Amino acid sequence: MRIPDIIAAKRDGKELSSKEIKGIVSGYAWGEVPDYQMSAFLMAVYIRGLSFAETSALTQAMVESGTVLNLDSITGTKVDKHSTGGVGDKTTLVVVPMLAACGLKVAKMSGRGLGFTGGTLDKLESIPGFNTALDVDRFISQVSRIGAAITGQTHGIVPADKKIYALRDVTATVESIPLIAASVMSKKIACGSDVILLDVKVGSGAFVHSIEQARELAQTMIVIGTAFGRKVSAAITDMNQPLGRAVGNALEAAEAIETLKGGGPSDLRELCVELSALMLYIAGQYTDLEDARNASISALASGSALAKFIEIINAQDGDPRVIDDPNILLQAAIVHEVKSATSGYVKAIDCARIGTAASILGAGRERKEDTIDPAVGLVVMKKLGDAVEVGEVLALIYANDPQTIPSASSAILEAYQIGELAQVPPLIYEVIH
Amino acid sequence: MRIPDIIAAKRDGKELSSKEIKGIVSGYAWGEVPDYQMSAFLMAVYIRGLSFAETSALTQAMVESGTVLNLDSITGTKVDKHSTGGVGDKTTLVVVPMLAACGLKVAKMSGRGLGFTGGTLDKLESIPGFNTALDVDRFISQVSRIGAAITGQTHGIVPADKKIYALRDVTATVESIPLIAASVMSKKIACGSDVILLDVKVGSGAFVHSIEQARELAQTMIVIGTAFGRKVSAAITDMNQPLGRAVGNALEAAEAIETLKGGGPSDLRELCVELSALMLYIAGQYTDLEDARNASISALASGSALAKFIEIINAQDGDPRVIDDPNILLQAAIVHEVKSATSGYVKAIDCARIGTAASILGAGRERKEDTIDPAVGLVVMKKLGDAVEVGEVLALIYANDPQTIPSASSAILEAYQIGELAQVPPLIYEVIH
Repeated sequence: MRIPDIIAAKRDGKELSSKEIKGIVSGYAWGEVPDYQMSAFLMAVYIRGLSFAETSALTQAMVESGTVLNLDSITGTKVDKHSTGGVGDKTTLVVVPMLAACGLKVAKMSGRGLGFTGGTLDKLESIPGFNTALDVDRFISQVSRIGAAITGQTHGIVPADKKIYALRDVTATVESIPLIAASVMSKKIACGSDVILLDVKVGSGAFVHSIEQARELAQTMIVIGTAFGRKVSAAITDMNQPLGRAVGNALEAAEAIETLKGGGPSDLRELCVELSALMLYIAGQYTDLEDARNASISALASGSALAKFIEIINAQDGDPRVIDDPNILLQAAIVHEVKSATSGYVKAIDCARIGTAASILGAGRERKEDTIDPAVGLVVMKKLGDAVEVGEVLALIYANDPQTIPSASSAILEAYQIGELAQVPPLIYEVIH
Repeated sequence: MRIPDIIAAKRDGKELSSKEIKGIVSGYAWGEVPDYQMSAFLMAVYIRGLSFAETSALTQAMVESGTVLNLDSITGTKVDKHSTGGVGDKTTLVVVPMLAACGLKVAKMSGRGLGFTGGTLDKLESIPGFNTALDVDRFISQVSRIGAAITGQTHGIVPADKKIYALRDVTATVESIPLIAASVMSKKIACGSDVILLDVKVGSGAFVHSIEQARELAQTMIVIGTAFGRKVSAAITDMNQPLGRAVGNALEAAEAIETLKGGGPSDLRELCVELSALMLYIAGQYTDLEDARNASISALASGSALAKFIEIINAQDGDPRVIDDPNILLQAAIVHEVKSATSGYVKAIDCARIGTAASILGAGRERKEDTIDPAVGLVVMKKLGDAVEVGEVLALIYANDPQTIPSASSAILEAYQIGELAQVPPLIYEVIH
């Protein structure tokens, strides 16, 4: 089985055997297949696609490139949640404590932001002292003890994914449904949870731009997870505007805390309740979705989710004073108002452009090795369907470097389309089991 | 202009600007674009194709990666001939002296064999002492003095092609018409001749298997050459059986000499006459193709082409005694007869398989760095349409290592299809100007 023959078969649109896929993927993980063969293969996969069977085989080969977490020592139902990435998506910070407060065990390994999308680890690290580099023993024992832990992916988990992702990033092979599905699911499977809820974002601030693509991605991931004996469901949710109002790490952490206190923007709160309810339902905690929803609402209203978040902060060396004093988080030197030059209704928001504005301010990364400023970002004051007058504030910029403000402002103004009142997209398009 | 954006545009089937193509190709030639980005780009090109304009831009970028030969000091019409590669194709050894004998100036840079196809340099080097590594000054002065020289490509000519070809070879991106066309034409253009005749091989022993593909390749190369102000014509010729009878370097050199003496296999002789006539006609040496054909026939009959070949051998340090004593060339230790197990007519020959048999014996290379044995090879005794009795010799194997004989014999027997009498393909399918 020569590597060029495997590449040629995929190039010509043939279906590969799992042995062939394992050959190229584990060869690459072990350093026997060079980057240039893998990138030619990835481009062939990007253009020709992969069948469900091929995608499962790819996922398996990726999982087998590293270690698989053993969560057997944790009693109860182990659950995991994944978002395909968006702008202002801080749901993990809210939903994880909600689920733990409702009795599930949440062993969550998260990532960092890249491009226009944010990352949970960056948001948590805006809390002074918060440790996102737990070793496996500490991670598992924390989940056992308090029901939840959120940490970075440990080194041994799916090393092939790290290597393949870095290559995809520089060879224009990122936006491929089977490659995204295998990347996400290999990590979810290696992380060992029994039940997985996928939040597939669709819209101007997501990797997928149509419901059809989102559905294909969700279905592909469900098929893979099921093949590995996991219980997987997916919600297809809107990303045509930032979720909530805050975009930027400390700003998002503060908004998540507000939401855990029972406040926060209504769209964020509603999505957190729905995702929590769905997870409680598919994990079998409630046999009725309405009961699961009520339990989720009550976790926010009663303060039990907030208490669980404080437990997590304490367990992971964070400063719990952030709960009562948002100024500990919010330390940007300059607040700048971005005002509308026209009047009308917010018709569309180029959400990726909003993410780029946050990146320009220093909240995000263009490249993996870039450093970020946790304090900076922006807060959108006008969302889809809102009426806008000339001179009204569209967004507040939180900056530390005044030189970043003009181009961030321009990006925000370019992102907003003010015009006739248009249909506002729903928060959740559909749920796939 | 980021490299991933250029790759993405081609991935999505968009037409690239010449600036974009130059960006990635010269970046690669200069070592600024890594192999893994180039291989992803090449796969996208393989699958999505290139327009004529893109292929011309690619050719230009490749030409500009190195030096261009200046043949201005040579008086007369400078011509070049290229075969896309086949099995037993020794026409260059015959046609170059024919053209020089007829008054054209032939500055020919040739290549080595790879895979199932042979290479002119390897064949010439089977002549003891023959030097195929002339420096540019010696090459040009030899062409001026005696009308012809055949040498290996000098280092500075299209370095991008060498680098790209090596990458294509290991990433399943060889058989792409625009990539083949740009590779061939960049070298022809950098070699500086005014008139180029392309021999596009089609059939079981060629890279292209259909007349349509051959025509597309020919037309692409003609469009490129014309864009560079060269006069280019192409003959689409048959490669469904070895050309002539000999396959293997010394065996082919001996057959070429026989042909220059006025003998040789009729198909080889006929093709050499036709290619020579075409070249004399398109170079303007004769305004009538029939006159050009008569001049070519007479170059063989009068011995003037043979005399020119002896001049070339002498000028390039070869041993001219090979002309009269073929034993100087033919030194294989073992001659083995491969006999037919069935009777009927030769219906088809898998010509690539014949090439592979020669490679097994040591006449060809699987990889560029492999060494070859000039003495070994095979002579086909039965060609398409020939009647065969059980036990009749299909081919003679010339071997030095007895262990190579069984699998070479098997490959030859597998290559032959004996059955009903079938239509024999023409030698030349069409000529495109």
